[in-house]
Amino acid sequence: MSIKNETSRITRRNFVGLVGAAGLGAASAAVFGAAANPDREVVQGIPVVTPAAPDSAASTGHDGHMAAGEATPGAGTPATGGSVDDMDAMHEEGIKSFPAPTEGLGGQPLEYELDGDVKVFRLTCDVVSWEYAPGQYADGYAYNGVIPGPEIRVNEGDKVRVHVKNNLPESTVIHWHGLIVPHDQDGVTFVTQPPIKPGMEYTYEFQLREGNTGSHMYHSHHNAAEQVTKGLLGAFIVEPKDPNKYGQYDREHTIILNDGPIGGFTLNGKGFPATQPVMAKKGEKVLIRYMNEGLMIHPMHLHGMPQLVVAQDGWPVPQPYHCDTINIAPGQRFDVIVDATEVGAWAFHCHILSHAESQHGMFGMVTLFIVEE
Amino acid sequence: MSIKNETSRITRRNFVGLVGAAGLGAASAAVFGAAANPDREVVQGIPVVTPAAPDSAASTGHDGHMAAGEATPGAGTPATGGSVDDMDAMHEEGIKSFPAPTEGLGGQPLEYELDGDVKVFRLTCDVVSWEYAPGQYADGYAYNGVIPGPEIRVNEGDKVRVHVKNNLPESTVIHWHGLIVPHDQDGVTFVTQPPIKPGMEYTYEFQLREGNTGSHMYHSHHNAAEQVTKGLLGAFIVEPKDPNKYGQYDREHTIILNDGPIGGFTLNGKGFPATQPVMAKKGEKVLIRYMNEGLMIHPMHLHGMPQLVVAQDGWPVPQPYHCDTINIAPGQRFDVIVDATEVGAWAFHCHILSHAESQHGMFGMVTLFIVEE
Amino acid sequence: MSIKNETSRITRRNFVGLVGAAGLGAASAAVFGAAANPDREVVQGIPVVTPAAPDSAASTGHDGHMAAGEATPGAGTPATGGSVDDMDAMHEEGIKSFPAPTEGLGGQPLEYELDGDVKVFRLTCDVVSWEYAPGQYADGYAYNGVIPGPEIRVNEGDKVRVHVKNNLPESTVIHWHGLIVPHDQDGVTFVTQPPIKPGMEYTYEFQLREGNTGSHMYHSHHNAAEQVTKGLLGAFIVEPKDPNKYGQYDREHTIILNDGPIGGFTLNGKGFPATQPVMAKKGEKVLIRYMNEGLMIHPMHLHGMPQLVVAQDGWPVPQPYHCDTINIAPGQRFDVIVDATEVGAWAFHCHILSHAESQHGMFGMVTLFIVEE
Repeated sequence: MSIKNETSRITRRNFVGLVGAAGLGAASAAVFGAAANPDREVVQGIPVVTPAAPDSAASTGHDGHMAAGEATPGAGTPATGGSVDDMDAMHEEGIKSFPAPTEGLGGQPLEYELDGDVKVFRLTCDVVSWEYAPGQYADGYAYNGVIPGPEIRVNEGDKVRVHVKNNLPESTVIHWHGLIVPHDQDGVTFVTQPPIKPGMEYTYEFQLREGNTGSHMYHSHHNAAEQVTKGLLGAFIVEPKDPNKYGQYDREHTIILNDGPIGGFTLNGKGFPATQPVMAKKGEKVLIRYMNEGLMIHPMHLHGMPQLVVAQDGWPVPQPYHCDTINIAPGQRFDVIVDATEVGAWAFHCHILSHAESQHGMFGMVTLFIVEE
Repeated sequence: MSIKNETSRITRRNFVGLVGAAGLGAASAAVFGAAANPDREVVQGIPVVTPAAPDSAASTGHDGHMAAGEATPGAGTPATGGSVDDMDAMHEEGIKSFPAPTEGLGGQPLEYELDGDVKVFRLTCDVVSWEYAPGQYADGYAYNGVIPGPEIRVNEGDKVRVHVKNNLPESTVIHWHGLIVPHDQDGVTFVTQPPIKPGMEYTYEFQLREGNTGSHMYHSHHNAAEQVTKGLLGAFIVEPKDPNKYGQYDREHTIILNDGPIGGFTLNGKGFPATQPVMAKKGEKVLIRYMNEGLMIHPMHLHGMPQLVVAQDGWPVPQPYHCDTINIAPGQRFDVIVDATEVGAWAFHCHILSHAESQHGMFGMVTLFIVEE
Repeated sequence: MSIKNETSRITRRNFVGLVGAAGLGAASAAVFGAAANPDREVVQGIPVVTPAAPDSAASTGHDGHMAAGEATPGAGTPATGGSVDDMDAMHEEGIKSFPAPTEGLGGQPLEYELDGDVKVFRLTCDVVSWEYAPGQYADGYAYNGVIPGPEIRVNEGDKVRVHVKNNLPESTVIHWHGLIVPHDQDGVTFVTQPPIKPGMEYTYEFQLREGNTGSHMYHSHHNAAEQVTKGLLGAFIVEPKDPNKYGQYDREHTIILNDGPIGGFTLNGKGFPATQPVMAKKGEKVLIRYMNEGLMIHPMHLHGMPQLVVAQDGWPVPQPYHCDTINIAPGQRFDVIVDATEVGAWAFHCHILSHAESQHGMFGMVTLFIVEE
């Protein structure tokens, strides 16, 4: 019914063709805008090179009122250092390189084997050198070598077994965040089980409860402030028997937020411009699964189209509600549905702006939501 | 129908008359209290100068149990340094000076011209020296010289054109946060348009969508973590065709939260005691539009009367709900309605107390909600 | 009808018997799990000491793929320093010592005297040396010598008088956060009253309003960023005339969150392992009253059972909703009901993991929700 996390359709080459031209002039900036809104009057942004009339609302204390194109020192030197053109070029370079190729991609579906009616998954815990942004590596911890770990996806009521092999230099355990499992399978060191020592293997097994569906997570619950932010985390998604439990949608896309020492501010283990775009065709409904595995809130703001909140921590909300910025706290998950009515490549980012942009351009928790005709 | 942001009715002089006397003694502290609650038993706070009876619930480990009025060194020296009286005097001075005059007032309505059926607004982007608190200046960026920028207010379905002149020493763009506009008018550098270079002018034009109403914002989306927190932000309010879409109210007041390098913690660009009070007459309903343009959450707490949340990001909530402290994350807007039933000057502040009070008294994100007979 | 804050039934000795054995081997880790889920298939976690088959999802860059039990230096030395066993031992020690005895227990019911139909309470404000975790003391401020202060609990519509004696070396006042009181009883220095100077006594008096019920707080509103985080805070609970106003429950437990200089991250003035467990018998419904008196958000995550949010700031929510992680901002209160269906000792903690666990094990905002047969 739905298309899952299908973001591989866009390559850097065709994306540059679609969007990157915006930086080259206003005429080409309307690639999407005009087409997206055929029934409304659209006036392109027009750079005017003649000086504007002095504004009647006088500003106080600003240093210089430059005529357009006038090459004053002030005009060429942002308060932030470097020339205006250098600064803009850094911003442009970031956008044009999106989605930038990096080594490693987390969150892909994890295969399972059937042992009778039990779905059997295998996870390893490893030290990895993770490329979180182009050319930027950090030593992290990973399930099956990727950050986030592979996506585990099962059905409501399924029986699940997960074999875990700990290749880390320290102990670990796995907690199934949001799943209602037997106490001894809950994965909390010394509360529900002994630690999984380095080199050891451990097996979890549980059956999903009726009603316990939706967007959940698995992550370390041992030295967790360090292990989770370093990368020991992944999505655990339980498909409900009723396919319309969370409303109708055509595609879905999971966004795991993290802000740890590995890669700083990341969406699915990557910082902009190495983040994955969210892809949709005009008219599709896209389910976004937000999961916060970091230590800070992240209010995610989508441009161009509102977000309809349909679930919190896997539970359908009593009445879905609209917003454009949804605040996700550590440990929370929110599912939203976006009606992809507006063609274009829309900015989509954490609205704590220091998690998304610096003087050198966008970075961290930024991606694009791309709606194609 | 409603009275908009009408806060200029109160001056420092008459406010001191209303409230400042509280510091002079309990007898005058009841100016509002007694009148506000004629149907209930009211007992004034009474300072008692005789020592209290030792309490039966013994305290452990406290150093010293001073008799009232006893002039021990401990009594006269708070842990925070300075004498008790000096410290209290600083607190009193802050309250008594409210609302303290400062240069510049942002958020006032922006005039427009009509070009056919298009409302034409003009904004400049300037470096300003902004007085965020009495005698405290900082270099900021401003639309039309004020922080926040002037309020743009239009009607549902309106056609809008905004001319922008960039007088900053760096490039900028304007994003219409919460508005659903054509892609090429969305204001994100290199994603939807080229940067507006220093000295250049740029024109945005779009038509408001049906249903896209309420409390929105405009702000920079270029080097935004710096430009927005420095002051390039303002309210963009769209009046719905249905005047009761958000419930009934008699007045309104916009509160833009910011926590950037300019002025630290501010409400509408000013820190206490230079903040504006919210004014109401007893029995009026007041719509508060919260908008967070900062980098931190701000849970706004109103004393004396509950807040009824009616809208989130301009969307009516499915069912309004009450609270006394509403948490607003960066990028979010919440509209609440306060039923001004209680006469008095009520404290109204961010409940991250370090954003509102220090050892020197109240500062930053504090104002008063004043209900007059 | 309900059992209030009855946490004293568990002692450290019997808790170790119930849960501590988890660290000793998987066989005993199922003490609760098997019993809790008699109708479902339960497979215990089984440590496997033979090396696992190499996983098909290749990991990149991890250093070493240790065979089980192989004593390589890497296996014995976590990145965090110290040996694996030393690190695990610290984690185990913390869990096994829970609930660790400390001096002083806040939040116990405050006795009152009747003066006619007025309930008369007495509070002192004192400097205390508070043991927030075993052997860890800090100088705090306390009501009646305890942090949090004693719980004040009255009924809807009650008349209340509170005598306050200030034994601190600085002035103070008390604000009744969430209560709708006459203006001159609201407790804000120089706005509604003069400061209560060191050595002075002050009396507050008000009548609870109809409808103003539920979970509220009392705390300092003078130099409050310091005084509240140091400990001048407590719960003020108003029982509604309708005992089912917030839904049906059998027990309740108040959790006051704080993150100040006294004790760092605390639940009811104590950090793990000195926190109090939440106790329930299987099948009971437990009302949790969250109150945030700190300077940061705290998203509280309960393992094993969902939380049904029934009230915000004392106001019933229009429609209760489920979650497993509830984000409480400073100044907010949320009431949730947990249906204690799952037997076991469940982890219950702030999901900002750095508030709950370090390399040395759990600390701070962690407790256990213990469901007994």
